[in-house]
Amino acid sequence: MKFKCTKGIMNEAINIVLKAIPAKTTMPILECVVIEAYGDEIKLTTNDMSLGIETRLPAEIEEDGTILVKAKMIADIIRKLPDEDIYFEADENENILLFCGKSKFNFPGKSHEEFPMLPEIEKSKKIVISQFTLREMILQTIFSISNNENNKILTGELFEINGDEFKIASLDLHRVSIRKMQLKESYDDIKVVIPGKTLSEVSKILTGGIDDKVQIFFSKNHVLFEMENTVIISRLIEGNFYNINQMLSNDYETKVTVNKKEFLDCIDRATLLLRESENKPVIMNVKNNEIKMEMNTKVGSMDESIRSEKEGKDIRIAFDPKFLIDVLRVIDEEEISMYLFNSKAPCFIRDDNTYNYLILPVNLID
Amino acid sequence: MKFKCTKGIMNEAINIVLKAIPAKTTMPILECVVIEAYGDEIKLTTNDMSLGIETRLPAEIEEDGTILVKAKMIADIIRKLPDEDIYFEADENENILLFCGKSKFNFPGKSHEEFPMLPEIEKSKKIVISQFTLREMILQTIFSISNNENNKILTGELFEINGDEFKIASLDLHRVSIRKMQLKESYDDIKVVIPGKTLSEVSKILTGGIDDKVQIFFSKNHVLFEMENTVIISRLIEGNFYNINQMLSNDYETKVTVNKKEFLDCIDRATLLLRESENKPVIMNVKNNEIKMEMNTKVGSMDESIRSEKEGKDIRIAFDPKFLIDVLRVIDEEEISMYLFNSKAPCFIRDDNTYNYLILPVNLID
Repeated sequence: MKFKCTKGIMNEAINIVLKAIPAKTTMPILECVVIEAYGDEIKLTTNDMSLGIETRLPAEIEEDGTILVKAKMIADIIRKLPDEDIYFEADENENILLFCGKSKFNFPGKSHEEFPMLPEIEKSKKIVISQFTLREMILQTIFSISNNENNKILTGELFEINGDEFKIASLDLHRVSIRKMQLKESYDDIKVVIPGKTLSEVSKILTGGIDDKVQIFFSKNHVLFEMENTVIISRLIEGNFYNINQMLSNDYETKVTVNKKEFLDCIDRATLLLRESENKPVIMNVKNNEIKMEMNTKVGSMDESIRSEKEGKDIRIAFDPKFLIDVLRVIDEEEISMYLFNSKAPCFIRDDNTYNYLILPVNLID
Repeated sequence: MKFKCTKGIMNEAINIVLKAIPAKTTMPILECVVIEAYGDEIKLTTNDMSLGIETRLPAEIEEDGTILVKAKMIADIIRKLPDEDIYFEADENENILLFCGKSKFNFPGKSHEEFPMLPEIEKSKKIVISQFTLREMILQTIFSISNNENNKILTGELFEINGDEFKIASLDLHRVSIRKMQLKESYDDIKVVIPGKTLSEVSKILTGGIDDKVQIFFSKNHVLFEMENTVIISRLIEGNFYNINQMLSNDYETKVTVNKKEFLDCIDRATLLLRESENKPVIMNVKNNEIKMEMNTKVGSMDESIRSEKEGKDIRIAFDPKFLIDVLRVIDEEEISMYLFNSKAPCFIRDDNTYNYLILPVNLID
């Protein structure tokens, strides 16, 4: 095996496949990357058994071949090489020689035979979507997945396609986050649950803009994201997701509209009075054209009033400030509207068509 | 006590005095900042018993007074306030009210009576130097102080003034770092050892340029750094510093000159082959007009040749790569010269007048 490639491109490619290298593993082979040289390109493959990544880059191949190398080590070496051509050789004993500029590295590789290569996925059901949009939709919902491995289904996100409507949703015990978009064409109905870990890595690899596309293929047990040079394959989480529509409601007694930044900054300040483990809610008094926000903790108290527009009844309601902050941070709009029913019923922060966030209030002992 | 000040200035001032707030302490009072309002300014004071900081800022004082507040908490609150005027009040029960924009905070302060205010320092011996230069000199030497509290004197840096020469030096078991500069006038001779922790905080507070001055006052047990609005007082470390001049030598058998960046990058790459606890040296073979650099570890090997200019004999010598990297990182010059004697004698990296770094080699078993 013998090839030449440029440092910059190799560096970029290896950083993509690093995302499927497990932080801890009892199987050392999973810490390796498979380097395959054939024709006029190199293919890098990593696989942590639930997430696998393959990426291709152009190279001048002098001799075909495949080798396995510790991924973290070769990534570190390549990052620090001068910006010149990399000459890479592996002999029949899996010894690797790497030249770049005036430096020469020599280290052992491994046979690739035992590496679990990525499964073949049936490519019948798919959708096409902009990379930018998918990344945004993931980042706008992923904060409310659960970390509790005992209820596996909640550690993932629902991907649901109905005709030309695409929806991503996640939920934990206190809240539901939903983002929706209109697809350019209609597709077969799909409803799968994708691990949060996969989506977090996918969002980092999706660096493309609005016009760069990603194809998403769905099979019985896997999902496959295909971009220009990179393929990401992940297992799905088995089981049925909760019926989210049942949790939603369009009824309300009070609708309050506020400037998002003012509201977020105020809640942020209120949390300053919380010491480590303290778990005090922020209280909202919605009255006429202002919300009076209150926070009372062991350390001290804060109150602040915020301009708002109200429709319907006055209301006093309390929330875990973290849940409000999580939602407000991912909404791009300048103004947001909250729909409230009573102090014990969920609050909905939603617009007409693209987002709907449900947050349960905290009981106030009056 | 009642005053008004602007958020930006208060925020800057509190961040300066935060640097003398101990991370851990058995005396909770040291986690507080003293806020004094008199005349037309506020003075903030913190003191961790070895380092104390005082800074002043302009304010509109309506009622004089002094109060003690948890420093970290008030710093967090002020940072997150809107960019408007801050109204601060403390009543006779040490209750604090803080208004800014539409937010109102209420929290308890403390009586300042038990706080250890900063000692009065006799201001007879002093030097004046540019803030920028002092910061540079500290950063260029502080990496070789020792962390071993059993040999206290080595946890500090020597400040020595002889006429118009000012010298800062630090050393541990493997190396010596010296920086020198010419002062604009002659001063009395001074030789003190200042704690590394103090100098590290001083270097962060010295944000001024070449033309901003700092006055340094030396008393028997203390050093005092005085800038426009800020004063930093630190205890000195007792005892005599090692005789550094005895360790230096101008003799050499080999002088090698290299491009600093090429040399540093090469050593940096060589360290990639070191796994966690492995402690292998980088070997330099100085021959004709190149240095062949070698690194051999459990992981693999590297070699690389670097262009150099040599005077004197060929030599093969080995170093802990970390010690070379530390020195090369703080030298600004494009080229550096190493002065070598034999493979067991110290290497000197020095120029004519401003720096001199001594590094002990690692024994090579040939």
